[in-house]
Amino acid sequence: MLQPWSEIAPRLVDVAMGRKQADLVVRNGRWVNVYSGEIVPGTDVAIVAGRFAYVGPDAGHTIGEGTRIVDAAGRYLLPGLCDGHMHVESGLVTVSEFARAVIPHGTTTMFVDPHEIANVLGMPGVKLMNDEAQSLPVNIFVQVPSCVPSAPGLENAGATLSAVDVREALAWPNIIGLGEMMNFPGVAGNDPKMVAEIAATQAAGLTVGGHYASPDLGRAFHAYAAGGPADDHEGTTVDDAIARVRQGMRAMLRLGSAWFDVAAQVKAITERGIDPRNFVLCTDDSHSGTLVNDGHMNRVVRHAIAQGLKPITAIQMATLNTAQHFGLERELGSIAPGRRADLIVTTDLTALPIEMVFGRGRLLAEKGVLVADIPAYDYPASAKNTVKLGKRLAATDFDFSAAGGSDVEVRVIGVVENQAPTKALQRRLPVESGVVQMDRAGDVCQIALVERHRATGGVVNAFVSGFGYDTDCAMASTVAHDSHHMIIVGTNKADMAQAANRLQEVGGGIVLIAGGRELALVELPIAGLMSDERAEVVAEKASRLVEAMRACGCKLNNAYMQHSLLALAVIPELRISDIGLIDVTRFEKTEVILR
Amino acid sequence: MLQPWSEIAPRLVDVAMGRKQADLVVRNGRWVNVYSGEIVPGTDVAIVAGRFAYVGPDAGHTIGEGTRIVDAAGRYLLPGLCDGHMHVESGLVTVSEFARAVIPHGTTTMFVDPHEIANVLGMPGVKLMNDEAQSLPVNIFVQVPSCVPSAPGLENAGATLSAVDVREALAWPNIIGLGEMMNFPGVAGNDPKMVAEIAATQAAGLTVGGHYASPDLGRAFHAYAAGGPADDHEGTTVDDAIARVRQGMRAMLRLGSAWFDVAAQVKAITERGIDPRNFVLCTDDSHSGTLVNDGHMNRVVRHAIAQGLKPITAIQMATLNTAQHFGLERELGSIAPGRRADLIVTTDLTALPIEMVFGRGRLLAEKGVLVADIPAYDYPASAKNTVKLGKRLAATDFDFSAAGGSDVEVRVIGVVENQAPTKALQRRLPVESGVVQMDRAGDVCQIALVERHRATGGVVNAFVSGFGYDTDCAMASTVAHDSHHMIIVGTNKADMAQAANRLQEVGGGIVLIAGGRELALVELPIAGLMSDERAEVVAEKASRLVEAMRACGCKLNNAYMQHSLLALAVIPELRISDIGLIDVTRFEKTEVILR
Repeated sequence: MLQPWSEIAPRLVDVAMGRKQADLVVRNGRWVNVYSGEIVPGTDVAIVAGRFAYVGPDAGHTIGEGTRIVDAAGRYLLPGLCDGHMHVESGLVTVSEFARAVIPHGTTTMFVDPHEIANVLGMPGVKLMNDEAQSLPVNIFVQVPSCVPSAPGLENAGATLSAVDVREALAWPNIIGLGEMMNFPGVAGNDPKMVAEIAATQAAGLTVGGHYASPDLGRAFHAYAAGGPADDHEGTTVDDAIARVRQGMRAMLRLGSAWFDVAAQVKAITERGIDPRNFVLCTDDSHSGTLVNDGHMNRVVRHAIAQGLKPITAIQMATLNTAQHFGLERELGSIAPGRRADLIVTTDLTALPIEMVFGRGRLLAEKGVLVADIPAYDYPASAKNTVKLGKRLAATDFDFSAAGGSDVEVRVIGVVENQAPTKALQRRLPVESGVVQMDRAGDVCQIALVERHRATGGVVNAFVSGFGYDTDCAMASTVAHDSHHMIIVGTNKADMAQAANRLQEVGGGIVLIAGGRELALVELPIAGLMSDERAEVVAEKASRLVEAMRACGCKLNNAYMQHSLLALAVIPELRISDIGLIDVTRFEKTEVILR
Repeated sequence: MLQPWSEIAPRLVDVAMGRKQADLVVRNGRWVNVYSGEIVPGTDVAIVAGRFAYVGPDAGHTIGEGTRIVDAAGRYLLPGLCDGHMHVESGLVTVSEFARAVIPHGTTTMFVDPHEIANVLGMPGVKLMNDEAQSLPVNIFVQVPSCVPSAPGLENAGATLSAVDVREALAWPNIIGLGEMMNFPGVAGNDPKMVAEIAATQAAGLTVGGHYASPDLGRAFHAYAAGGPADDHEGTTVDDAIARVRQGMRAMLRLGSAWFDVAAQVKAITERGIDPRNFVLCTDDSHSGTLVNDGHMNRVVRHAIAQGLKPITAIQMATLNTAQHFGLERELGSIAPGRRADLIVTTDLTALPIEMVFGRGRLLAEKGVLVADIPAYDYPASAKNTVKLGKRLAATDFDFSAAGGSDVEVRVIGVVENQAPTKALQRRLPVESGVVQMDRAGDVCQIALVERHRATGGVVNAFVSGFGYDTDCAMASTVAHDSHHMIIVGTNKADMAQAANRLQEVGGGIVLIAGGRELALVELPIAGLMSDERAEVVAEKASRLVEAMRACGCKLNNAYMQHSLLALAVIPELRISDIGLIDVTRFEKTEVILR
């Protein structure tokens, strides 16, 4: 294990003085110095015990018989890249598989909020991911989820984290702060739980992650800043970014698989001349396909440079700025003595090909290929058997009864392409034998929220429009933000039942059944959220799922994400939860059938 | 007392939302935003419980019946200034009097190393100053002195601080880190005490102050950086500054009463384009005359701007940069919600007239006049009776015997104007009746180091050249860096004895006796280092002392400082200590008479 600087310092000093030999010396690099903002050519780097011991013009005196020498041949040496805010679960893989996927892209530090697993498994889930994080050869710091459940009173998640739970977890090793404080009305309203969580985090000297998902920059925004969150990744406009920085919060600019918030906000620097030091780059959510095909933080840095940032500035925003924000500046985020020897070798700072990646002084990846041995992490059975329906479902479980008459006016969740908010629609649907019928021609099908944490057998039925399914089919997912029950959307109730039962069988995942045939399946046995397979395999299966949805008539962009967000009872207008249909403009339960 | 942000946050939020009233609202200011690097006109600031609650375009909703309103009338609002490294004792006044002197200049935060009092009183002295610091309405953080004594083996100070002492003190409230690590050869050589002190500081999450007083930027410098010091104020050239920043250390640029290290080093930013975020301004040592007549951090910021820095950059270097360095960014150093409401009002960012100074939301000074009530701090008797000579001295105590002959070749400490290093001179002096005689015409007079901590009665005699005294006189001082015995320089042994006895009478200070007459006296009863009077009074007395020295023929610039540094057995070439004459090129005791 890596020793702290305070313990290993005498050895670093011995190497710097030439009294002991380095483990590794990288010679003749162009030092991307994130402190001074310079590129310093002709630089040697000596590494011992996983930390930088010497960075200067000539490390010849640190070389001994046992020293491995790498010739950088004039290439750039930059610090390993840091992701300032992200959720591993969004990749549908474990922490280990996520690390395996992103290390070849140069990511060596991640700040992760295990919010999703916490909603399924509670604190034991957070602890599992924190334990796994510490087993890896890169730096994965964990934030304690702040809002579990996300919408108390409107949903029952698999677990509830109290302020006391949060305070206790803040003392665990590797915990870096509080996860995104999504309950911004709660902060502005002094909700006792939110106040207690923030106070405990500040008192522990840790960082309070923010999440102010509102365009309102008035009193509520100022109150949120006064409440304590230290960063925010929910800004989307240049004024959002500037407002956050002015209030002393870090503006975290996000480029995820489906988030594109860098281009607009980076204009604060390129066009408005704002000091870049308080800007941090992050991904928030990356699908496995993005990781496999496009990259991770290297993609974000490249993109930021393409928006007009100087390369050194963009790199600072993914290294030193991030480290400083989390109080880790003297631990990582730069190539300087004492810091963890996380290092990238590249020939070009703009195209940013990631040629070599060192983590704590070990070569982890070369030419895009992982060379480190990262074994699969063994999740316990308790994390795997989490889809508990209490029974096998039948088509009749999805019957929506109406008291009488031949038709009925219902509320319908309206999906809007490329937007997280839904529309609260109204439609008139026929009733046959006391059961409300779908309207396939009018693109109204059924949605069901199936309780899966406590085996209550609960099924909440409602209607949804916008997916465009035009054949007998049903898609089910146990990734169902944020309480992660099971969401099924289908045009055919037998397919809906089959999909639900199939996910119960495999312990969770995403499945598409059409006319009784399984067109695609992504098994996610860990908490019903994560695969135990490689990111490449998961990406391939997810890609087949998208094809299958298309084959059933769904042409929406990112349709699977839309599906998985339909229970997110914190974003307007209509959502479904285990207690019923939720009106998120008024934060209360409502009825499907209009009176 | 000021409550932590974590405890007061709900009240800040209530004020930001308009649910509770602010204590103070400053309206219509130009917000000097050290985070964004902007000047934001039309800004209101609402303060409650000593912290900023709201900073934005309109704080009208935070105003109630009990709210005090200040109209900034378009003037600039900037954060209170921070001194990143300084010694209170250099002002010859107490912490309270120092604060009283600098608050009207806009200084609201100081990072002080009570190194001098530690050499006299040990840890109890550090504790006294730390207690006093916490009694004040501005922020005075204390570093634990790292090197007491400064030259172990070459001197006996009034106390010794062990690594265990240091580690214990690091846990005291208000302690911010380790004081300047002067023993840079010890760091490069892994001296166990230095290693233990640095390790304890890093393990406590605190900041290790640096002090690399050498022009060598080779291996020893790199080893020093690897050893852990996080900043350094001993750089003098532009390359010094850049080298430190590149290694991840903060370059602290110093403008003291006798230090002029800003102009050269700031060119790193203005001419070499180095990122300014890792530069910090400080004073290190300010005489009371400077504080009374010229200013404090406002003088440094003005000077930095005069060297070509943008005002906002210079201000960042005395606010946000300093706070970030010490891990206090979310506590002070900016005008942003949650931070301590330390605020300056000024009409001009370049001339920087300090028109109003608020500390923790209280008006402390206006138009250069202190309006806060800062009572004198009552030092205990144990801190006051520290000049223990063990006897009354007589002229014969200063006789320097020689074995025989009519003259003798002696080593003479050569004082060099405006330089801390001395020259090791050699002179031939006459011997009469077995006693070596001075050579007034050749500017060689006597110097004595009188033991004053343990009443041993010890007197070490030697010879000094360069002061130019041309009449019967003697000057004595109990400020005698770093072990602070008593240094007497005189042309007349009776005057020397009288001066020593006078300082014993008044409990320490500086006195000049000429032909039996006391020409000037600065009483420093606290540890023999500090007055209990006002800075103005001390400055006046010190000024009279300088006049008296001139009257006795001493025309050297800063002659008193030269005098007080003659026992500093860490700077070459020749010094005097309680164990004898010290050759600081070889770090060993040497003999006055050459063999």
